[in-house]
Amino acid sequence: MVPRYSRPDMTAIWEPEARFRIWFEIEAHATEALADLGVVPASAAKALWDWWATNPSIDVAAIDAIEAVTKHDVIAFLTWVAEQVGDEARFMHQGMTSSDVLDTCLAVQLSRAADILIADLDALLDAIKRRAMEHKYTATIGRSHGIHAEPTTFGLKLAQAYAEFIRNRERLIAARADIATCAISGAVGTFANINPAVEEHVAAKLGLTVEPISTQVIPRDRHAMFFATLGVIASSIERLATEVRHLQRTEVLEAEEYFSPGQKGSSAMPHKRNPVLTENLTGLARMVRGYAMPAMENVALWHERDISHSSVERYIGPDATITLDFALGRLTGVIDKLLIYPERMQKNLDRMGGLVHSQRVLLALTQAGVSREDSYRLVQRNAMKVWESDGALSLAKLLKDDAEVTAALTPDHIDRLFNLDYHTAQVDTIFARVFGE
Amino acid sequence: MVPRYSRPDMTAIWEPEARFRIWFEIEAHATEALADLGVVPASAAKALWDWWATNPSIDVAAIDAIEAVTKHDVIAFLTWVAEQVGDEARFMHQGMTSSDVLDTCLAVQLSRAADILIADLDALLDAIKRRAMEHKYTATIGRSHGIHAEPTTFGLKLAQAYAEFIRNRERLIAARADIATCAISGAVGTFANINPAVEEHVAAKLGLTVEPISTQVIPRDRHAMFFATLGVIASSIERLATEVRHLQRTEVLEAEEYFSPGQKGSSAMPHKRNPVLTENLTGLARMVRGYAMPAMENVALWHERDISHSSVERYIGPDATITLDFALGRLTGVIDKLLIYPERMQKNLDRMGGLVHSQRVLLALTQAGVSREDSYRLVQRNAMKVWESDGALSLAKLLKDDAEVTAALTPDHIDRLFNLDYHTAQVDTIFARVFGE
Amino acid sequence: MVPRYSRPDMTAIWEPEARFRIWFEIEAHATEALADLGVVPASAAKALWDWWATNPSIDVAAIDAIEAVTKHDVIAFLTWVAEQVGDEARFMHQGMTSSDVLDTCLAVQLSRAADILIADLDALLDAIKRRAMEHKYTATIGRSHGIHAEPTTFGLKLAQAYAEFIRNRERLIAARADIATCAISGAVGTFANINPAVEEHVAAKLGLTVEPISTQVIPRDRHAMFFATLGVIASSIERLATEVRHLQRTEVLEAEEYFSPGQKGSSAMPHKRNPVLTENLTGLARMVRGYAMPAMENVALWHERDISHSSVERYIGPDATITLDFALGRLTGVIDKLLIYPERMQKNLDRMGGLVHSQRVLLALTQAGVSREDSYRLVQRNAMKVWESDGALSLAKLLKDDAEVTAALTPDHIDRLFNLDYHTAQVDTIFARVFGE
Amino acid sequence: MVPRYSRPDMTAIWEPEARFRIWFEIEAHATEALADLGVVPASAAKALWDWWATNPSIDVAAIDAIEAVTKHDVIAFLTWVAEQVGDEARFMHQGMTSSDVLDTCLAVQLSRAADILIADLDALLDAIKRRAMEHKYTATIGRSHGIHAEPTTFGLKLAQAYAEFIRNRERLIAARADIATCAISGAVGTFANINPAVEEHVAAKLGLTVEPISTQVIPRDRHAMFFATLGVIASSIERLATEVRHLQRTEVLEAEEYFSPGQKGSSAMPHKRNPVLTENLTGLARMVRGYAMPAMENVALWHERDISHSSVERYIGPDATITLDFALGRLTGVIDKLLIYPERMQKNLDRMGGLVHSQRVLLALTQAGVSREDSYRLVQRNAMKVWESDGALSLAKLLKDDAEVTAALTPDHIDRLFNLDYHTAQVDTIFARVFGE
Repeated sequence: MVPRYSRPDMTAIWEPEARFRIWFEIEAHATEALADLGVVPASAAKALWDWWATNPSIDVAAIDAIEAVTKHDVIAFLTWVAEQVGDEARFMHQGMTSSDVLDTCLAVQLSRAADILIADLDALLDAIKRRAMEHKYTATIGRSHGIHAEPTTFGLKLAQAYAEFIRNRERLIAARADIATCAISGAVGTFANINPAVEEHVAAKLGLTVEPISTQVIPRDRHAMFFATLGVIASSIERLATEVRHLQRTEVLEAEEYFSPGQKGSSAMPHKRNPVLTENLTGLARMVRGYAMPAMENVALWHERDISHSSVERYIGPDATITLDFALGRLTGVIDKLLIYPERMQKNLDRMGGLVHSQRVLLALTQAGVSREDSYRLVQRNAMKVWESDGALSLAKLLKDDAEVTAALTPDHIDRLFNLDYHTAQVDTIFARVFGE
Repeated sequence: MVPRYSRPDMTAIWEPEARFRIWFEIEAHATEALADLGVVPASAAKALWDWWATNPSIDVAAIDAIEAVTKHDVIAFLTWVAEQVGDEARFMHQGMTSSDVLDTCLAVQLSRAADILIADLDALLDAIKRRAMEHKYTATIGRSHGIHAEPTTFGLKLAQAYAEFIRNRERLIAARADIATCAISGAVGTFANINPAVEEHVAAKLGLTVEPISTQVIPRDRHAMFFATLGVIASSIERLATEVRHLQRTEVLEAEEYFSPGQKGSSAMPHKRNPVLTENLTGLARMVRGYAMPAMENVALWHERDISHSSVERYIGPDATITLDFALGRLTGVIDKLLIYPERMQKNLDRMGGLVHSQRVLLALTQAGVSREDSYRLVQRNAMKVWESDGALSLAKLLKDDAEVTAALTPDHIDRLFNLDYHTAQVDTIFARVFGE
Repeated sequence: MVPRYSRPDMTAIWEPEARFRIWFEIEAHATEALADLGVVPASAAKALWDWWATNPSIDVAAIDAIEAVTKHDVIAFLTWVAEQVGDEARFMHQGMTSSDVLDTCLAVQLSRAADILIADLDALLDAIKRRAMEHKYTATIGRSHGIHAEPTTFGLKLAQAYAEFIRNRERLIAARADIATCAISGAVGTFANINPAVEEHVAAKLGLTVEPISTQVIPRDRHAMFFATLGVIASSIERLATEVRHLQRTEVLEAEEYFSPGQKGSSAMPHKRNPVLTENLTGLARMVRGYAMPAMENVALWHERDISHSSVERYIGPDATITLDFALGRLTGVIDKLLIYPERMQKNLDRMGGLVHSQRVLLALTQAGVSREDSYRLVQRNAMKVWESDGALSLAKLLKDDAEVTAALTPDHIDRLFNLDYHTAQVDTIFARVFGE
Repeated sequence: MVPRYSRPDMTAIWEPEARFRIWFEIEAHATEALADLGVVPASAAKALWDWWATNPSIDVAAIDAIEAVTKHDVIAFLTWVAEQVGDEARFMHQGMTSSDVLDTCLAVQLSRAADILIADLDALLDAIKRRAMEHKYTATIGRSHGIHAEPTTFGLKLAQAYAEFIRNRERLIAARADIATCAISGAVGTFANINPAVEEHVAAKLGLTVEPISTQVIPRDRHAMFFATLGVIASSIERLATEVRHLQRTEVLEAEEYFSPGQKGSSAMPHKRNPVLTENLTGLARMVRGYAMPAMENVALWHERDISHSSVERYIGPDATITLDFALGRLTGVIDKLLIYPERMQKNLDRMGGLVHSQRVLLALTQAGVSREDSYRLVQRNAMKVWESDGALSLAKLLKDDAEVTAALTPDHIDRLFNLDYHTAQVDTIFARVFGE
């Protein structure tokens, strides 16, 4: 966890106190279920909840001090709770194993983290949609291989990002369901010393589903899928961030990360507005993606469990979720305030003297009965002149001066081929597909 | 692609001829749609399908020879088809771009690959289920950290694997849906030169969904999710393979990969039956997992597309699917024929002199009113003797000779605590959860 | 292995026949050493070498047919050799284990692969150096964050690449030494059935060093380091490829991948020269990098060895070396023929109206006694005007019209500050550091 | 950074105060060099060092407060220093760029981290060597594929680990040299505003080498190699940790992580001593290995630099070095205090009734003139009986009762074949190779 790439809500999930609170709730709900089954006295559950109702603060330092002696975190916690609650607390944890608490707690933490990330995605989607609507018809050059290809609109660029993050939202919801399970099944998952009803009760109370079969631990394929999904989302962040970085290049400058009016550039050079936020996002994406690998290596635990996954999760549990939360928030801010320059887009569109329309001319010639080979030759010989002039000449004009071309196409027809409307004709269709409106 | 880790059905998907067949179908369906729209003559589509109805073989070498000149695979293919079909073929590919064909083809290939993998999972699930039912109540020691913990059953071990691969099956179905989209949208995805109806038609004919918005290419977050999912499945394969490797260790020997009666060991030593299939699976899992990283790096293409993803997919498209198909098949064979040794499981269970039941004794003492501390002390002092005897002494017997213990528990009660039935009492419940029966 | 990304010399190393030839040499050298030790008759070694001197072709199909029966590749090979050589061949492989042959063979293959890669690096270095010398003083804008920063030279850009690949060359030499070891030490590496002198003899004959201690297998940390090093080299390829991709962008166009005069663009648009080679290199880099992970996972084999590494190496041995060889060759071609446009570089340099020199003006004002704050203010107010004019105004001119500035700096002084010579003054120094001349 | 997997010396390197101290030294040394060149007054450098001689504490909070306003960490630091030192401080940083300070500082931090890691390796090597010497001749079974193969010694197992970590030490020294460079070269690395002599001076003072060519930043292939090397070392840690985990399995129990006499097991079961330290190391290895990927992705920065590497390094700089330092320390403790059970090793060696010697019998028969096929048959039929008796029968005895065998080998000869001395005969040779003594 790097503080500067952290936001408080997500960080709070991973703080010791939050973890202890979840542990208590698991234990108290379990005691309740055990009381219902007659395994422990009802007074035990009541004592726990009565104390909890006083909204006690959790003395993390005291629990740590006990752990320093017992070398066991769950026992340390239980001991401390017993000191607070008194004698009735001895019925807690009956028939349970530490992993029942730890893994179910992790499920709660990751579910909460996923909830924040889903909300983050919603905010990002809102920002993207708003800007997409705003620039639905803003013409801009589409580029393949970094080279001018054909016109598109800035709204379409954002609509693509919207559709991508809608997919990521669905993936995250599936991944959340994958890790939101409760296991209270004992030392090797056989329920030898605890009734499955306890698990069902705790799961229901915590909003989790029951883990159908566990082996002391919740199987780690669930977590692998979760962290792999975060890696995919991070990769989509990188894609949009890279788009902004490209657009902000000095020679392109079709958009810029927001710069407050009074803000100074990094030097005396006013053009030196660097896309540092999106560069930063690019790096953060590398990190989140990288966490998918150890998560996958965690799956193959030995026999009913070993504990090699635990250290990995102490890193990537917080690091992947906190970093992704921060990154989504930062990207939302970037999109929300992105400075978009339609005039510059138009200027860049025009800089090739109309070459971006040559494809349409080619098609029109073919449809007018010129052979494919001749059409190509006619377009090519005029296009080449435009290209050699670095866009100073106009392709439309040259074509209208070429007798072989005008034998097939009227000047008017030629002009119509250079109309951007062809390229925006289906924007409504695509927007309807993406935004459903 | 490594031939020895390949099976023909999956490999066939990736052969040049298969690819060209899919290309043809995309082009022919598209021409059909264009004819419906009146853009090209109906005779064009008919000519294509008429030729196709002759079930022509695809001359890969001829197409490659053309590509060697044109340096463009799709144009080479179209040229070759035109040579076969004749003049009407000139209407093919009208308004389309190469990526329309390439990306939609990849969607078909990955969908087919996913179908095979889903069938592989079904076969694996069948094998696991059959063996799980067979050994539903076969007692075996559960191990945490590689150390004996409490008894479980071999059926439960397999039921866990079953549940894990059921999850993987669901994930794969979701991943298949993610990549099964059709894009025929032109140079930058605006449909400037082609009606969206063409895309809809081709998608329907090929069993794909329409890509809501593309940018010449189908967005690569879809593929990243697909390959990440294969990586998770591979990790589950590694888990089950690792379990078999452990069980086959000389000192454990509770199960073995199948060895035909006449088969020689790798040397003069008859015990030298090595778990080479599952070791091999462990390595294959590393490969499939590793392919997830470049797939994720592929997401952030520049602007509307660059072609950096293409070389990556030429490797991982075949390699990840072929390897995973082979691995699933191999794992199915391993499970199907696994030699399972219940007597040895029982022997291992017994080797600790009953120590694996000490937890139950502890609980029974507590429930009989002995304080937790005293209970622990009583169990510990007897357990230690058993441990020091390396299992030669019996914990049950020692407890029955310990007056402090028998003050709380009758010999009969003690005997019952050493009954394996406690540990199998919930097997039915768990099986019902997992297998629904 | 993807044929289109393969070159014959490297591919040849990984062909079955090449492997069998190395196997034979290992076996024959070992038999020779065994004969010297008196373990086998001298006639045995002689028979092997006599046959070898006939330059026999290796019948791969025949060996495969035997393997189909024996299920053991080394035994199949030995059987086939025995069929060719006759009775004396029975002394081959005395006291050896299959891994002695397999691992030593892999060492030879990887060493040869490394030799090709080192030669590839040499060719690349030559190309980079030639172009660096050619453009040693070609002024171009340096960019940080994709934004114009200060001038540099195109030669310096290439000199940086040169220095980077010199480092990679040194790393590869170290990595080659790491994997070039010979192990002939028996079933668990104790030399129980074979004298260490055999290992020493074979190592010397094959140009390998002796593996100080092996455990049937050569330890895989060596291979992990080798493939990690290839991953770093691939990352450097990506860096240089990315630079070219950026320079070829339509708006930048300071350099282009070579386009033969007669070559057609991908469409009617003559500007559509796509940097497909360097995009391809970007994807190949992702693959080679990705292979480092399974190589590292291969290190932790169980006990004296398991065979999980083997399947991994059947992929990455060929795939990583063949792909990197191809990529280095392709990059060398790109650099060798790169179309470099100094006029466009100058045009881009000038497009900001001299803003790239503002830093120097700032320093000069400070050194002329103006406070840092005032200097900043003076530069900033003039620079802002240039910026707002999109480079139409000249910063030098504006400064010479600003009384507060001219109070500190003469017009002549100002002009000198806009001299590119400041930025090239140390080019010789840097070139001497990099090229030693 | 996870506090429980951190040690103070390494953590200290990454604390803000440590970073600021390095920054100061870079700035002060640079000012000194600038003074020598006459660019700034000598009094400026003197003022800085005089203040430094007072051993001032660094007020991190004050610097952070300034950064909150300036949004620039280096400027904030310079401002704070200026407040402490006074007017002379204005000459600091003349002609330098922030990256000169940041990247050179990182070089110092990583060098120091490497020094600690090298010392860690030395301590680990000492521990391994001591235990290897102690158990040089302790016989134990060697295992391939987890199956008993032939005898070896526990000292040889450790000698292999020693050799592996010696290699890692050499790799780390090379990696340290790779990142220990100093760059003070200005905005795009041209030294336009600063004399290269400054860089040389600072490098010498800080014990770094001069970066031959930089581009504002030190090239990231250096760091990629560094973190990849840490990944390889982590993989070796995993190997040795996995060995201990295997040895501690209940059924094997040839060694155990240290358990203090008074320490309680994790439950009432005294056998429940879990190899939690080595399991933990396995997880930590996954993390360190995973950090190699983003480090490699950092190499391809855009043009002269972008800042995407920075966020990655804020994670992996501390995380990889702190985790590896902790892991090496933990592994050293594990090896140092490892409980080693030679009796159990012997018991395991014997459990197969002498089958582990069957290879030697086979060889002896062959050398006694029995054909290879007959030898195999004779050994096999006796071995099979031993195997079926689960080691209750003795192979030596059965052979001595087999007339066909005794026709070739005397009982005495047979007994000698079952002598472990064959397997330890070369231990001295191997130890001399590894330990040089």
